[in-house]
Amino acid sequence: MFVTHLECSACSRSHPAGKPANLCQSCGLPLLVRYDLEAVGRHLTPEGLAGRPATMWRYAELLPVPAGYPPVTLGEGMTPLVELPGLGRALGCRGLLVKDEGLCPTGSFKARGAATGVTMAKVLGIGHVAMPTAGNAGGAWAAYCALAGLELTVIMPEDAPVVNMHECVAYGAHTYLVKGLISDAGKIVARGVARRGWFEVSTVKEPYRVEGKKTMGLEIAEQLGWRVPSTIIYPTGGGEGLIGIWKAIQELQALGWLEKGRFPRLVAVQAEGCAPIVRAHRQGAPVSQFWTGAGTVAAGLRVPKAHGDFIVLQAIAETEGTAVAISDGEIERVQAVAAKHGLYVGPEGAAGLAAVPALRDRGWLDAGEEVVVLNTGSGLKYPAPVRPELPVLEVDAEP
Amino acid sequence: MFVTHLECSACSRSHPAGKPANLCQSCGLPLLVRYDLEAVGRHLTPEGLAGRPATMWRYAELLPVPAGYPPVTLGEGMTPLVELPGLGRALGCRGLLVKDEGLCPTGSFKARGAATGVTMAKVLGIGHVAMPTAGNAGGAWAAYCALAGLELTVIMPEDAPVVNMHECVAYGAHTYLVKGLISDAGKIVARGVARRGWFEVSTVKEPYRVEGKKTMGLEIAEQLGWRVPSTIIYPTGGGEGLIGIWKAIQELQALGWLEKGRFPRLVAVQAEGCAPIVRAHRQGAPVSQFWTGAGTVAAGLRVPKAHGDFIVLQAIAETEGTAVAISDGEIERVQAVAAKHGLYVGPEGAAGLAAVPALRDRGWLDAGEEVVVLNTGSGLKYPAPVRPELPVLEVDAEP
Repeated sequence: MFVTHLECSACSRSHPAGKPANLCQSCGLPLLVRYDLEAVGRHLTPEGLAGRPATMWRYAELLPVPAGYPPVTLGEGMTPLVELPGLGRALGCRGLLVKDEGLCPTGSFKARGAATGVTMAKVLGIGHVAMPTAGNAGGAWAAYCALAGLELTVIMPEDAPVVNMHECVAYGAHTYLVKGLISDAGKIVARGVARRGWFEVSTVKEPYRVEGKKTMGLEIAEQLGWRVPSTIIYPTGGGEGLIGIWKAIQELQALGWLEKGRFPRLVAVQAEGCAPIVRAHRQGAPVSQFWTGAGTVAAGLRVPKAHGDFIVLQAIAETEGTAVAISDGEIERVQAVAAKHGLYVGPEGAAGLAAVPALRDRGWLDAGEEVVVLNTGSGLKYPAPVRPELPVLEVDAEP
Repeated sequence: MFVTHLECSACSRSHPAGKPANLCQSCGLPLLVRYDLEAVGRHLTPEGLAGRPATMWRYAELLPVPAGYPPVTLGEGMTPLVELPGLGRALGCRGLLVKDEGLCPTGSFKARGAATGVTMAKVLGIGHVAMPTAGNAGGAWAAYCALAGLELTVIMPEDAPVVNMHECVAYGAHTYLVKGLISDAGKIVARGVARRGWFEVSTVKEPYRVEGKKTMGLEIAEQLGWRVPSTIIYPTGGGEGLIGIWKAIQELQALGWLEKGRFPRLVAVQAEGCAPIVRAHRQGAPVSQFWTGAGTVAAGLRVPKAHGDFIVLQAIAETEGTAVAISDGEIERVQAVAAKHGLYVGPEGAAGLAAVPALRDRGWLDAGEEVVVLNTGSGLKYPAPVRPELPVLEVDAEP
């Protein structure tokens, strides 16, 4: 294992690795895992990676799990980076690539953070973890906790996607609904941490989830032959995925596997009905403010205030990226357009795709640019319960 | 491209590749693609494969698409082969591995056959394809046809999973329901072929779908380090997946990449409510008889008579495998057991898993055997529409 310590993302204070940790003891902000990257570079080369299994664990030296410790895994990672020229033309960008995280176990990118988070909880001897969720993180953590034999308490909005509720129940998590938003669920979890000794695993409130998400960035770089695209577009709720991708690129630059100082422009996409990071970015503010009355069809984007917001805003600023809000109507329009071109995405992924024409309209994006959009979850996680109107044929029908 | 010709699976008559083909012109039975495997062996080595992208197209030399022709792809294949010791213990087999085809695009193994089938339809200049489906093949073909710009007519039972109907509609396929089974849908398609010139792409009624399914077998062998497990268990509706895996192993043996003559025992799993192949196997019959009154929760297994049944039966016999039928009650029980151990499978995959205790009980399977079960589709394709009964907390609740 090449982990040296945990470092506060805000004040840089160092904390020891190897024991349970949540936030910085000085400033209460997120901790990030730091590695001895020189040692990693002596141990691992891009060529050495090539023959490894097609999961995110191929990057073991850049992950926090002790060498030899078996990861809690469903084979997550190495999702395809798909060229979609037809959809690209429809959206106004020929160089469109989609990283399809809907093909992760449990149908969303949340599997990556759950795999590292649950494995590290096991490594550190934690018995009962708890989290608020907008939906998909709950499903993913429930799966990996079931796999690991860890107890999980999960609290989600009562109007979260029904599929996520069934997932949590099927996997055996202690599942509660709340008459409110993920932020309200978070407050109940915080009280449970104080009263019951649960270990909190909310977004960026422990340092290992983001390490799993980081592998999205590692994979994009590897799949492009160790270079970065011009722009990466990320549907942003808690923002952990975008933070992870940014961290991946920094580490690969430090390793010398990517050109130093050459970053993709990172774009955070939110829904118009819940766009705290977009608002903060527009105002040039270093942190976001709580978004009152959050509401959108994209359940995963309904995060009124993210604890890691300042890191997302910093990532956007330092990579000359941007932030953009998409209306629910446009999300649904683009979801239909994507399906007609062969890709059935969830509304979060549709928001990411919808950022392409939005940014083209602003003149921010060129038609020929190489753009990677993250589809963070499968369209199958939002099933329409009612049978569509379709012609019903008799068995002897003539077509 | 290393394709030499198409060969009838029954009478061995040779047919030319490179033009549209359905069944053998002599005996009306399925055609299989044959390759110049000596030439493939000179061109490709296991080591040469290692660095290729993690999709089924890494095996390009063993696929029918002309060299240089861009495949119609969503990045399908190289699904994980997951060790599940906890679930294995629960089912009575320590050496359980699950090949999770739920992580294919469109959530089932059908994506593989659609990728090769649609690509070859495009190569051969076919404009309008048609198929009956139990559900998932329709969803997959609708996606790949949308991606390729091909017209698709799909006909499915009116009680097929609602998700599959929505998929077909969203992707833009001409979608019809039938007051009957997949066999009735098949008859309507056959009439459409005669009347309207559709090109039929039903299971094993064109030679290229099975080539995509074959990659499951190629991957299992590669993922195990170029060897085969003791037993492979396959949920069997039309049987194309099992046929493909058998073909893969034969080709890898011919290439010298797998030990000659050493086959995994192939097990076909069906539902008690539709088990024509199990019945034929028990009777020692070379072909199955139409199963009257087919009904099971596992929509994908509701195929009362498979056109490739005789190949499945031959594969079972020649590998010293077997066939087993699982009750719907046991499918649902094992589905719940699998979820409690971290894996959310569809009922078809659950039938596959349920074969493990069934074969242990018979003394057919040893506790220590290395067994690969194919989970042919994601549990997300069978969403429960109703919100589960869960405690609803007030925002100020004390946990």
